[in-house]
Amino acid sequence: MEHEFHQWLRDHPSINRPDKSILVGIGDDGAVLSSESAHTVVTTDTIAEGTHFDTSIHSLDLIGRKALAVNLSDIAAMGASPSHAVLTLLLPRHFSLADTKQLCSGIFEIAANYDVAIIGGDTNKWDGKLVIGATLIGHRSPSTTGWRINGAKQADRVVVSGSFGGSIKGHHLTFEPRIQLANYLAEHYEIHAATDASDSLSLDLQLLAQASNVGVDIDVDKIPISDALKTAETQTQLDGALYDGEDFELILTMTADVFEQINSDSNVPCQLTNIGEITPVTQGLRLLDTNGTFHPLIPRGYVH
Amino acid sequence: MEHEFHQWLRDHPSINRPDKSILVGIGDDGAVLSSESAHTVVTTDTIAEGTHFDTSIHSLDLIGRKALAVNLSDIAAMGASPSHAVLTLLLPRHFSLADTKQLCSGIFEIAANYDVAIIGGDTNKWDGKLVIGATLIGHRSPSTTGWRINGAKQADRVVVSGSFGGSIKGHHLTFEPRIQLANYLAEHYEIHAATDASDSLSLDLQLLAQASNVGVDIDVDKIPISDALKTAETQTQLDGALYDGEDFELILTMTADVFEQINSDSNVPCQLTNIGEITPVTQGLRLLDTNGTFHPLIPRGYVH
Repeated sequence: MEHEFHQWLRDHPSINRPDKSILVGIGDDGAVLSSESAHTVVTTDTIAEGTHFDTSIHSLDLIGRKALAVNLSDIAAMGASPSHAVLTLLLPRHFSLADTKQLCSGIFEIAANYDVAIIGGDTNKWDGKLVIGATLIGHRSPSTTGWRINGAKQADRVVVSGSFGGSIKGHHLTFEPRIQLANYLAEHYEIHAATDASDSLSLDLQLLAQASNVGVDIDVDKIPISDALKTAETQTQLDGALYDGEDFELILTMTADVFEQINSDSNVPCQLTNIGEITPVTQGLRLLDTNGTFHPLIPRGYVH
Repeated sequence: MEHEFHQWLRDHPSINRPDKSILVGIGDDGAVLSSESAHTVVTTDTIAEGTHFDTSIHSLDLIGRKALAVNLSDIAAMGASPSHAVLTLLLPRHFSLADTKQLCSGIFEIAANYDVAIIGGDTNKWDGKLVIGATLIGHRSPSTTGWRINGAKQADRVVVSGSFGGSIKGHHLTFEPRIQLANYLAEHYEIHAATDASDSLSLDLQLLAQASNVGVDIDVDKIPISDALKTAETQTQLDGALYDGEDFELILTMTADVFEQINSDSNVPCQLTNIGEITPVTQGLRLLDTNGTFHPLIPRGYVH
């Protein structure tokens, strides 16, 4: 199977796209990229059976898609454009060639959609469960310095893309990484801090607050709730939005002025919502409830 | 543990080395490298419990070392200098903080030895066995075009570093990747083709021959035998050298003239041996035995 699979791989259009930044692609000991004038961004993320997906429920192409999408979400959170990827596949012994191709097809489809060239990889069969890793390389303009997790400033608005909660119903596999949004904002606006909500809105807010040495106030009435939770009770909706995880939306901070400009910019490609603001670190993480009372926000998330 | 481990990681000198090519290191959604004038080389390799190592026999620091060393060997095979790495750890649930630190210490030590900055990673606990992946980024001069697996030419000498066979006795964990050799040769000589012997001398010779569309004749009397096999019978020695695998030596091809120059160059940092030559593809892979008779060389290697 190895040989047949590698043959299929080498003949696949996703592997053979002409690209002048690739001097050496798949098939050698490593890939060689020509240098670029932009800064290079590198991120890696691995998904594993039983932790991030379940092959008895999820289709292999959607699992493959997710392996790349979670990395694209990190690239978006850096305000960068993805360009190249290397893959790692640890395949269970029972995996057929058809299984492997289906998995890769999901990876290749989303790679093509986001203009990512697959430039190398490592495939092994083993006695364990399915593991798919990817390392993504991207580029961003040297002027895009604000897209760090540690850049939040006092009185910044906390702004999120899309909506939150209930990703287990499908969004965790089918989400569109916020590359388009990130690239538009990086080009036109000054963003102070950025990360993506992968663990959960509350946990990733905590990471951003800790890295930036600030506190955060979140207004519960403003948190956008995903359609997957729209029929649930209010408390279930709020809990889902704060703690479910795998939403892969962007969490951004910026001045109130910048948010106003963005809010009236019709070219912004998706919904952005101001859900709160940055406060002194001594105030910690707080939730403002419907009655105008503050409560401590205790971060938690999906435990894989 | 996650938090404690990340704290240890962030305070570790291997993670905090000042390096002006790293604009953003560990702790954000991705790493950012400044662009360089050299070509960028990317390679990825993953090792897994039961396939590439056995935690009941091998120490965790040597296992960590191996995870980086196998990638360094690929960088050497591209004639490049390593510079940056991202890591993926899938840790069994029973792994303690001390286990994880021991594993990482092995990675960090060899990273420091080869001047590799760890710029990111992804750590998960899961219900499966230990998996360690690394993606290495390196650089090479735009003039180093010959270090490809597909560049072997008719009448080239087939030249190997070090010695072969019996790596299971320890070499597969403790080998020094041939970075120093590769960098010296890349700078001073024209190499037509290069790869590293990871699967086995015979299998990797086959890969190089197929990629280059050539045949190879190997002289059995010239194959350097590792000390691990020196007390074995002659046939066992030869079989070990050809089929054992995980030697992580370089296989190079070059003109006879270039080999002569290299052979009399006292600055070459390790033993190089001319074990055969490149032939027309129609002759396939052949072994020349002690009696001067040719036999077909049937490639095989260590089946993980």
